[in-house]
Amino acid sequence: MKLTPVSELKTFALQAFGRCGVSPEDAETAAEVLVTTDTWGVFTHGTKALYAYTRRLRGQGIKPRGRPRIQSEGPAWALVDGDSSLGMVTGVYAMKLAVAKAATSGIALVVVRNSCHFGAAGYYASLAASLGQIGIALSNDVPSVAAPGSRGAVMGSNPFGFGAPSAHEGAMVLDIATAEVAGGKVAAAAAEGKSIPLGWLLDNEGKPTTDPQLFIQRQAALAPMSGHKGYGLALMIEILSGGLSGAKMRDKVGIWMLDPPEQATDHSHAFIAINPATFLGEKVFPGRMDDLFGHIRSGPAAAHVDHVKIPGEIEQGKRAKALAAGIDFPNDVRDKLKTAAEENGLPLPSFLA
Amino acid sequence: MKLTPVSELKTFALQAFGRCGVSPEDAETAAEVLVTTDTWGVFTHGTKALYAYTRRLRGQGIKPRGRPRIQSEGPAWALVDGDSSLGMVTGVYAMKLAVAKAATSGIALVVVRNSCHFGAAGYYASLAASLGQIGIALSNDVPSVAAPGSRGAVMGSNPFGFGAPSAHEGAMVLDIATAEVAGGKVAAAAAEGKSIPLGWLLDNEGKPTTDPQLFIQRQAALAPMSGHKGYGLALMIEILSGGLSGAKMRDKVGIWMLDPPEQATDHSHAFIAINPATFLGEKVFPGRMDDLFGHIRSGPAAAHVDHVKIPGEIEQGKRAKALAAGIDFPNDVRDKLKTAAEENGLPLPSFLA
Repeated sequence: MKLTPVSELKTFALQAFGRCGVSPEDAETAAEVLVTTDTWGVFTHGTKALYAYTRRLRGQGIKPRGRPRIQSEGPAWALVDGDSSLGMVTGVYAMKLAVAKAATSGIALVVVRNSCHFGAAGYYASLAASLGQIGIALSNDVPSVAAPGSRGAVMGSNPFGFGAPSAHEGAMVLDIATAEVAGGKVAAAAAEGKSIPLGWLLDNEGKPTTDPQLFIQRQAALAPMSGHKGYGLALMIEILSGGLSGAKMRDKVGIWMLDPPEQATDHSHAFIAINPATFLGEKVFPGRMDDLFGHIRSGPAAAHVDHVKIPGEIEQGKRAKALAAGIDFPNDVRDKLKTAAEENGLPLPSFLA
Repeated sequence: MKLTPVSELKTFALQAFGRCGVSPEDAETAAEVLVTTDTWGVFTHGTKALYAYTRRLRGQGIKPRGRPRIQSEGPAWALVDGDSSLGMVTGVYAMKLAVAKAATSGIALVVVRNSCHFGAAGYYASLAASLGQIGIALSNDVPSVAAPGSRGAVMGSNPFGFGAPSAHEGAMVLDIATAEVAGGKVAAAAAEGKSIPLGWLLDNEGKPTTDPQLFIQRQAALAPMSGHKGYGLALMIEILSGGLSGAKMRDKVGIWMLDPPEQATDHSHAFIAINPATFLGEKVFPGRMDDLFGHIRSGPAAAHVDHVKIPGEIEQGKRAKALAAGIDFPNDVRDKLKTAAEENGLPLPSFLA
């Protein structure tokens, strides 16, 4: 398999966004989010979906020249209208706004309405950490996950991102969804004709099933992470993003991969930034995180592992390899990148040849 | 089994705290936290532990006349020194402080050091909701939970509480720990001589085990909730409470039930309050929560359940029954209440006779 150079992948993404009328500045932002996510090895949320973003951009369901704007604000908060821009553009705007406010307020919450799918929540958490702050990034989505006792999906597999900086031990970046397993894993088993373990999927009667085909046929919902715990966290995320921003919630949110591309999806998000220096003074917190992360890493590990990892560490290792040697994309990603080239009238980049 | 009247239980708790030199005002606060938790049916975090709080109060590891105080603050944040007071006294003080600040700032974060075990995180989340705000309550604790790939415990089963008010549909109150199952469940299986399912416990080599005795013998650690997800959330909670307050972290925190009662445990907490009216104006958010909760409740439910529940709803139902008819305590709670009576020189209350 040919490795994909990161710089060429980014150039390709910039061209695709450009073909849809996105400004160079916004294309840079969105491409950076997706390509960084690919370097982490999180292919489900990287450029694999480039074709879906550009389809909706061409349909105007995402406005190529949309501009997120502050609808109302205070020193420690803001309500942002995403103007149906690219979710990555609005997400980066909103997290940077939260970080700027937290720099003086200690903590800030920015909620966003009228957005679309924003990629990986972990990107925004990582962004806050790279700016020396703690970040939390949340988003709602259409229901795909059951609640305890439900027949059918009740909540989205709403993502939770958390980032915290250290001085020398790297950032912690947590990015989790609130379903027990990702829908992509169930779909992969269905494609391979395999059965799945009990506990991943619930049929339309609310009973556990091992048949992944039911999910493809929309006759089943993902199981929530640890039952009532994942359900509760997903509902919390819906409240903080959709509820607090006055946006659409649950099944009123658009299905961003499938709905007609002329329609805005009205996803909503919430971003919290916390400035540790406000609480502890300059330079104290990063050193404390060095101690915390270092002690966990040097603690006793099971025979099969090198050491206990800090969340995000594996992704950082993959990123270093990707930047040095390129990204080893599986075929499904390469196929979707080809679709993006074709649909945007771009020559096939050499890394896809 | 004789039911325990809620008012008599509270009087008993007030007397016990009073015998240890706690002021009537602080005794009222702490008793209200523990007794409310009992009315929810969450017996692990109610008056069952009264004897343990009073032991440490008599030993001065918890100061009977300690006073939580603001060490530094801004309009949207505060760092509180708990002065080794009762965790419930400091917790209520800190969450009320967060709510007061969020009333004007939109969001506020209060971090707390020098505290002790504060009971159920859900109490503080519920407190914020009862005051019309969204609340998040977090606490660190000594390690009892493994990380993926670790040998032995790495993180506490750090609790996460979330509360949100509605106008007419009751509050959502989520209270979850970050271990896959509570240690109490493993201990109960050990006491009954039963084995436990794979996935609850990891032995000292980091391998799954069905033997709950290993947990009692401190030769095993609880499994994290959904593997890396629960580990990541527990680490986040440690960072926001212990990390951000400058307090002790992980194994440096005291074991509140077992350490010598002369020692302060130095637990730390974090409380976030969010004022929805700041974002949406008065009365908008509670109505939105009515819609959200109502639609979830009226959605399709599996054959064996009445309707899909909002987190905290089951506990509210138990509370209504408890207030009307009393609490049906299991024997282990009644035994521990007897211990509290004996150790505090109180006559056995009639509900324990």
